[in-house]
Amino acid sequence: MKKLINAPDAVVAESLEGFAAAHADIVVLGEERKFVRRKSLTPGKVALVSGGGSGHEPLHLGFVGHGMLDAACPGQVFTSPTPDQIAAAAAAVDTGAGCLFIVKNYEGDVMNFEMAAEMARGKVLTVFTDDDVAVETSTYSTGRRGVAGTLVVEKIVGAAAEAGAAHAELQALGKRVNGRTRTMGVALTSCTVPSAGKPTFAIGDDEIEMGVGIHGEPGRRRAKLESADALADTLVGAILDDLAPRPGTECLLFVNGFGGTPNLELYIMVRAAKRTLDGRGIKIARYLVDSLVTSLDMAGCSITLAAFDDELTRLWDAPVHTAALRWRG
Amino acid sequence: MKKLINAPDAVVAESLEGFAAAHADIVVLGEERKFVRRKSLTPGKVALVSGGGSGHEPLHLGFVGHGMLDAACPGQVFTSPTPDQIAAAAAAVDTGAGCLFIVKNYEGDVMNFEMAAEMARGKVLTVFTDDDVAVETSTYSTGRRGVAGTLVVEKIVGAAAEAGAAHAELQALGKRVNGRTRTMGVALTSCTVPSAGKPTFAIGDDEIEMGVGIHGEPGRRRAKLESADALADTLVGAILDDLAPRPGTECLLFVNGFGGTPNLELYIMVRAAKRTLDGRGIKIARYLVDSLVTSLDMAGCSITLAAFDDELTRLWDAPVHTAALRWRG
Repeated sequence: MKKLINAPDAVVAESLEGFAAAHADIVVLGEERKFVRRKSLTPGKVALVSGGGSGHEPLHLGFVGHGMLDAACPGQVFTSPTPDQIAAAAAAVDTGAGCLFIVKNYEGDVMNFEMAAEMARGKVLTVFTDDDVAVETSTYSTGRRGVAGTLVVEKIVGAAAEAGAAHAELQALGKRVNGRTRTMGVALTSCTVPSAGKPTFAIGDDEIEMGVGIHGEPGRRRAKLESADALADTLVGAILDDLAPRPGTECLLFVNGFGGTPNLELYIMVRAAKRTLDGRGIKIARYLVDSLVTSLDMAGCSITLAAFDDELTRLWDAPVHTAALRWRG
Repeated sequence: MKKLINAPDAVVAESLEGFAAAHADIVVLGEERKFVRRKSLTPGKVALVSGGGSGHEPLHLGFVGHGMLDAACPGQVFTSPTPDQIAAAAAAVDTGAGCLFIVKNYEGDVMNFEMAAEMARGKVLTVFTDDDVAVETSTYSTGRRGVAGTLVVEKIVGAAAEAGAAHAELQALGKRVNGRTRTMGVALTSCTVPSAGKPTFAIGDDEIEMGVGIHGEPGRRRAKLESADALADTLVGAILDDLAPRPGTECLLFVNGFGGTPNLELYIMVRAAKRTLDGRGIKIARYLVDSLVTSLDMAGCSITLAAFDDELTRLWDAPVHTAALRWRG
């Protein structure tokens, strides 16, 4: 294992310290590194809290800031944050209007966020994300996995919260966005969890894992490496089969690198996905291209499509200012 | 070789098409894909043009936009753009106030940008960047190499150009910024150039290349992998030996991933570099942490320090709106 680390068990703590130092204009690191929260809170705004295992950075801590999350709770690598962490984050950022939890659908996350919600006694609502069309159940999830589409939910609900939307309204919006968002990914290599010290799975020099999960979980099938055009066509095809948008639907196309894939390749996948979408009569209204929901050093990418309407487009376009996502609206 | 591509010789062209589609709000792809330029130009502003071999994305095309470059010329992977490309870019973005070329110090780039400057007949000034302290001459350069510090020159000179600075003034500023900026990098793995199909260099499972160049050129030495703290201490130490800032100097700390390194590790390097800088009495006034000057899929990172003064800090903070770098000022 070759990594820029000091010790496997210090990875998350030390990375959080570096993150908090580098983005001290936006975030504050909570006590005992339980969470990262916005430096300044907006009284009366519903507080958005997310989190999950580390190793997917910049998700979620890179999305804490104006127009997106109020706090993010990082667990150890690929390990859920504890209920105690989540409850502490909720208490730190709830200014009286309640909290909305945004939680990727993995058993550990669901359980721990639900326990934290109980500890907070009725002031919490939750949105679960399950945008991964690859498989119906998986290693760590009953039902579909929450993956890169979680970013879309966090951005859009974050914009609505900033604009003053009410607690239940934000939960309904989050469910609506999740329901209109689909993702599928492909891995070219495994990731290596620092504490394990070896690749999560073995894969041949000419093989891919089609439909891989963001922890390196199995997808639909092990297959031979194909061209970018063929891979994008498979991913977009699987998404469209499931999402079934009407021709003419305006979509967000989000091409997301898993951590070990250069931008040069991501944009080849953008071109390839656009070819398929153009052929299917789906309009790309917005693009997002970057490595934002990662799996440590895994090579590969996911494609996310979100079917936008005027409201969702407006909220997507609203200003955001976080460590990893910034635009002016 | 496992990459998300269609064919090795189509990599740059297809990636450019994806890039131009995804960022059509900011850039336009020039005829025959010779350059990427800003969608809207500011008449009377000195035009900033950069470029170089592809494979370092988002450098340079991701820095085209308000507050930074007017055009970027991408060569094939790790290959200089042609004089014809550069001259076409200059002609496309010069609104009458002249062009400033920002060129990394590699023999092919220097030669081709100089030929393009001659073709433009006296309307061009040039700034060469050579911020890499690792080696004095290298595989493709006489004198030091221009690496991640080029971003700092492009950002600061871009802000001054936006504010209306004159042609010669911008060249002097670019030289001043380059003179106050130093970088050194470390590689954990090689990169793989698509047309070569195999790693540029061989490296053992427990080895690093200390002082590596952004094309995988040799650095100072092949060594055993060390802790993040030790690696950062070596990089920062080499930079400070050369830059020799007075204690109390306010610096930009830019930790740059080479393409195959997760954010989680970059922030551990931030923490590690900060430890060394704190110990040396150097104040970190600004941070930048991301994979912005890459070497395809190489794992590793570089550290850049730029000694800021009030003027440079103000220009660094000025608004920028490009595909890869955005803030509001």
